[in-house]
Amino acid sequence: MAETTTSETDAMRRAVALAASPGVPLHPNPRVGCVLLAPDGTVVGEGYHHGAGTPHAEVEALAVAGERARGATAVVTLEPCNHTGRTGPCAQALIAAGVRRVVVAQRDPNPLAQGGADTLRAAGVEVETGLLADEAERVNPAWTFAHRHGRPFVTWKFATTLDGRSAAADGTSRWVSSPAARRDTHRLRGLADTMLVGTNTVAVDDPQLTVRGDDDLPVGVQPLRVVMGERDLPAERRVFDDAAPTLHLRTRDPDTALRTLYAEHDRHHVFLEGGPTLAASFLRAGLVDEVVTYVAPMLLGAGRSAVGDLGIATIADALRLELAGTTVVGDGPDANVRLVLRPALRPTERGTN
Amino acid sequence: MAETTTSETDAMRRAVALAASPGVPLHPNPRVGCVLLAPDGTVVGEGYHHGAGTPHAEVEALAVAGERARGATAVVTLEPCNHTGRTGPCAQALIAAGVRRVVVAQRDPNPLAQGGADTLRAAGVEVETGLLADEAERVNPAWTFAHRHGRPFVTWKFATTLDGRSAAADGTSRWVSSPAARRDTHRLRGLADTMLVGTNTVAVDDPQLTVRGDDDLPVGVQPLRVVMGERDLPAERRVFDDAAPTLHLRTRDPDTALRTLYAEHDRHHVFLEGGPTLAASFLRAGLVDEVVTYVAPMLLGAGRSAVGDLGIATIADALRLELAGTTVVGDGPDANVRLVLRPALRPTERGTN
Repeated sequence: MAETTTSETDAMRRAVALAASPGVPLHPNPRVGCVLLAPDGTVVGEGYHHGAGTPHAEVEALAVAGERARGATAVVTLEPCNHTGRTGPCAQALIAAGVRRVVVAQRDPNPLAQGGADTLRAAGVEVETGLLADEAERVNPAWTFAHRHGRPFVTWKFATTLDGRSAAADGTSRWVSSPAARRDTHRLRGLADTMLVGTNTVAVDDPQLTVRGDDDLPVGVQPLRVVMGERDLPAERRVFDDAAPTLHLRTRDPDTALRTLYAEHDRHHVFLEGGPTLAASFLRAGLVDEVVTYVAPMLLGAGRSAVGDLGIATIADALRLELAGTTVVGDGPDANVRLVLRPALRPTERGTN
Repeated sequence: MAETTTSETDAMRRAVALAASPGVPLHPNPRVGCVLLAPDGTVVGEGYHHGAGTPHAEVEALAVAGERARGATAVVTLEPCNHTGRTGPCAQALIAAGVRRVVVAQRDPNPLAQGGADTLRAAGVEVETGLLADEAERVNPAWTFAHRHGRPFVTWKFATTLDGRSAAADGTSRWVSSPAARRDTHRLRGLADTMLVGTNTVAVDDPQLTVRGDDDLPVGVQPLRVVMGERDLPAERRVFDDAAPTLHLRTRDPDTALRTLYAEHDRHHVFLEGGPTLAASFLRAGLVDEVVTYVAPMLLGAGRSAVGDLGIATIADALRLELAGTTVVGDGPDANVRLVLRPALRPTERGTN
């Protein structure tokens, strides 16, 4: 644990709040906040990263502080970067400005960006890490997860009737979910950087897979549309229109697909909306990190199941999840129930982080 | 609408609260409250019915008031009975006590008990009906429903995984629902007067179908256990033990079964816990008035569906329900979601009562 002062803790809380400022995109860059404290604890500069192509939080705070940065303490939610991207490395900027001490919440999980703390220490700057690290991670959950695991975080979304059907016996599925649930889905799509379906869904349902809705894309960037599977697809499918970029990954292996999306396309959060077979593939591979389901208050008694065969024969082997949230979306006859679930931790995993 | 005074409305609110006093059984008698007002509006007597075999609410209130009942107004949640059951008819008791005026909330829907208002009027007593009638009906929802429709109210309860399975591929189903959900089920069973399953459930699952739990049977009366279907059953099945009475109805027709339970067994509220085939029969016949489902945060991918074929081929014909309540039952890994739903009213039915 970091050895830090009360005013540094207060400043870190402020930095976390700055990082999570409204309108800042979740992708591709992490959201970061920075507060500069003079030796007497007064704030001499603040800043946060506004998204890819704009100055980093530390640079913005240093610009505000000007000469008052000399001898100051930089309180920053993420380890200052050590590499030269579209902006120069922040570690060098802090050293050049004469900052005496740097307090960091979260260590950088990105191998490309690591080393900032070491560079600072080598230049004689005091560095403490770990202050409010959990709070800082929660500002960039998918980004943190992706860099830590080498693959994107996967949210599997499905709509279902009360009796677990995602389509009727004749294949019709418009609409199992209510208008309010569909609006809510667009909002959640807008939080991810990747939409993923299988070739079969594109062939059968022909979805556009874009984010629609007034407030769902504040910065105007549509998620990447990814179709997974070996089958050829006709070019006139809606997923290939000009509304967003689209990638056809010619593999049936979820692990390969996810690692490719991370390593070659810088993707951190996949929103999986495939059919029961693709969902079952991800579930069997243990590659679903979050389940979002909209339960519609209707019964079908027959039709397509929401999830395909998982190779589970007996109740003791059921794939167990933990309920993380329950919300009624919409009113009256339009009301659906949204459940959010996470894989249940085995007892040995509980309490670790 | 009744022509009534403010003090009569206040008294009716009190009478409704008295009717719903804790510990009063919901079956077989209606819960009733009564307040006696002197001509100046002061309360001179109160009473409520404590259950079958005990005095009716009016009789209890008259006993408290004694001579002060003469010239008083009786404010009572249900039309005073006109028949002689285990106690004498309340209409006669009110006349004999010299009550001048009777204000009633709910008219008696039971053909056997109707006529109390006419008897009172014939004896020169003023009678107003309909004051806070909706509130009064909500004190005895199943009883009111049963007498109005000539059959018991039907609650269908099922436990399901997220993907609509009530048992795994090998038939194992203990336990889809969590311990907290099973405790909650016992509480709900205790609110009904009848448990209903099919012969197949008895043959395969051998449930005991009793209410277990410390506080679930405050008056110690187990619901009637009913097994429906033409198949013979071995006498050693648990449903035939001494814990509660049991009836084998040798019919496969839900309407016949329900009308028999009402007409011959005075049953008002059936708690249906049958398998998917029996549930589908009730649903297809339009004989499910309430659905209670416990959604367990697990996936099976295969196994028995919660509901059998409903003859629905396309999404437009889905059996639509309306969400009436969403509750998380239990904590952490033990959390299940309880959904309560009612049949969706067709537009022409909306706004009527």
